[in-house]
Amino acid sequence: MTERAAIPSTDWSQALKQGRRSDLARAITAVENDTADAPDVLAAAHALAGQALVVGVTGAPGAGKSTLVGAYVGELRRRGLTVGVLAVDPSSPLTGGALLGDRIRMLGHAGDAGVFVRSLASRGHLGGLTHSACAVVDVMDAAGRDVVVVETVGVGQSEVEITDLADIRVVVWAPGAGDDVQAAKAGILEIADLIVVNKADLPQAAATEAALRSAASYGSDAAPQVLRTAATRGDGIVELADAIARVSSGRNLDRSEGAERRLRHQIAGSTAALVADAAARHPDLITLARSVRRGSLSLDDAARRLLARVVADD
Amino acid sequence: MTERAAIPSTDWSQALKQGRRSDLARAITAVENDTADAPDVLAAAHALAGQALVVGVTGAPGAGKSTLVGAYVGELRRRGLTVGVLAVDPSSPLTGGALLGDRIRMLGHAGDAGVFVRSLASRGHLGGLTHSACAVVDVMDAAGRDVVVVETVGVGQSEVEITDLADIRVVVWAPGAGDDVQAAKAGILEIADLIVVNKADLPQAAATEAALRSAASYGSDAAPQVLRTAATRGDGIVELADAIARVSSGRNLDRSEGAERRLRHQIAGSTAALVADAAARHPDLITLARSVRRGSLSLDDAARRLLARVVADD
Repeated sequence: MTERAAIPSTDWSQALKQGRRSDLARAITAVENDTADAPDVLAAAHALAGQALVVGVTGAPGAGKSTLVGAYVGELRRRGLTVGVLAVDPSSPLTGGALLGDRIRMLGHAGDAGVFVRSLASRGHLGGLTHSACAVVDVMDAAGRDVVVVETVGVGQSEVEITDLADIRVVVWAPGAGDDVQAAKAGILEIADLIVVNKADLPQAAATEAALRSAASYGSDAAPQVLRTAATRGDGIVELADAIARVSSGRNLDRSEGAERRLRHQIAGSTAALVADAAARHPDLITLARSVRRGSLSLDDAARRLLARVVADD
Repeated sequence: MTERAAIPSTDWSQALKQGRRSDLARAITAVENDTADAPDVLAAAHALAGQALVVGVTGAPGAGKSTLVGAYVGELRRRGLTVGVLAVDPSSPLTGGALLGDRIRMLGHAGDAGVFVRSLASRGHLGGLTHSACAVVDVMDAAGRDVVVVETVGVGQSEVEITDLADIRVVVWAPGAGDDVQAAKAGILEIADLIVVNKADLPQAAATEAALRSAASYGSDAAPQVLRTAATRGDGIVELADAIARVSSGRNLDRSEGAERRLRHQIAGSTAALVADAAARHPDLITLARSVRRGSLSLDDAARRLLARVVADD
């Protein structure tokens, strides 16, 4: 509890409640860059979050996810809902800026105050991406966005982890990606609430849909619904929005529980980050590494000793 | 020190010294999957590592890295050196298998016992990828490979971190990627010992080379050498191998120091992993998250309390 009454600062709880775009942008920047305002922004966001429906969209590169998200966002706007979009790219921080520009253009909602788009790229920080994504979703949620869409690039373990922060998970596939359906059995379809075959105007759409239905129902009691869309033409988008709304109401989704789950990710991520940074820089690491090389200490024992020293120093 | 004298098990130190492919494959699998053999494999590898030259190759997708690595490996074989190749894909574990198959085909050394190829994909595990890559490099090094090439996909923060495990870092670029050169100023060129303009038969090669020279020398005392190659035709590969050898001998590289640096990564990564797993599963996480939502505890304080409890439970 530091003394900061004398400094005129933003009342973040009030600012987020009002939900102005400029404040939302500043709040997210504060959280992303961990500025002096970040603790206040986060405290306000955590207290207010738990109202938005959070929809996670993932799938293989080339499936047309961005176009699909753009079309879905348009449909939400027609229904009078405000939207936040978070595009997450776990693979490449350096293309983050370019990606964001592309995404905004592809979404086609650049002039609409009801749509707020932000991208987030990997920091290479241990446990950082899911942690950061959860924080940004909470800020958008707290700022009154009715729906927050989290779009991830690629189908990897980190994408699975990131969609874990969503209330509803949509997996997007393009026709003809036969090998990917095979690979997908390993994980991505297991987490899907809805599966979308996008680019359904392509000839192999029916075969891909059949393969996905078969893969998704394998060993599962409640197979997810499979939908077809052609996002560039707007086909199937109303049905997609309806299906997402149906899953949401059918499950009696407790959005407050979603906010708590995201907060647990943030706490666990912050805990790991406390140790990761300190461990990598700890002066004893040099002598511990030499002991392991000489064979006088196992790797596991070295890690446990380092943990004890990191915590003792803290 | 568990009692395991009665169980006939592999003498991993002996097996790695002999360096048979089948034993090398088994050793890496043990480390990757953290089997019962993993501690013995790692202890043997850490004691023996520090002989190989470790060359990190990174660059934008589409730069032709795999073809270049394949051609470089061919040149090393002509010089009578044995090679280990580790292809690391931070973005996508699910394509790991397919990637490996592709890489081996592209490398064109499938029938050569002197070339050992392995791929490694992100585990989504906190701190896991660099940690795992370091361990696999150590096993290849311990098994007597003269040169270990670590190829990463993409140009992101995790790639920068992964090339940190290499003795020599090669950054590969393709002509015409102007925006990427801009983006690259942010980090990737700073870590380069050598910069390669591959596909140098394309018309924009000279312009890209000039842009890279300019970007690489900006604010730097010792600008890295820029080379041109056309890996599909084998052009410039002898010169690349010579340049790598020259950097290695010119710097009087202490490979033992490289092995120690990799070991420090493994210890720090294991330390963070001890906490990350335990934190995410800790029963107190639920009540801590509720306190943060209510505003009675800050995120930072919640993380510190959780760390104290994780360590106390250990």
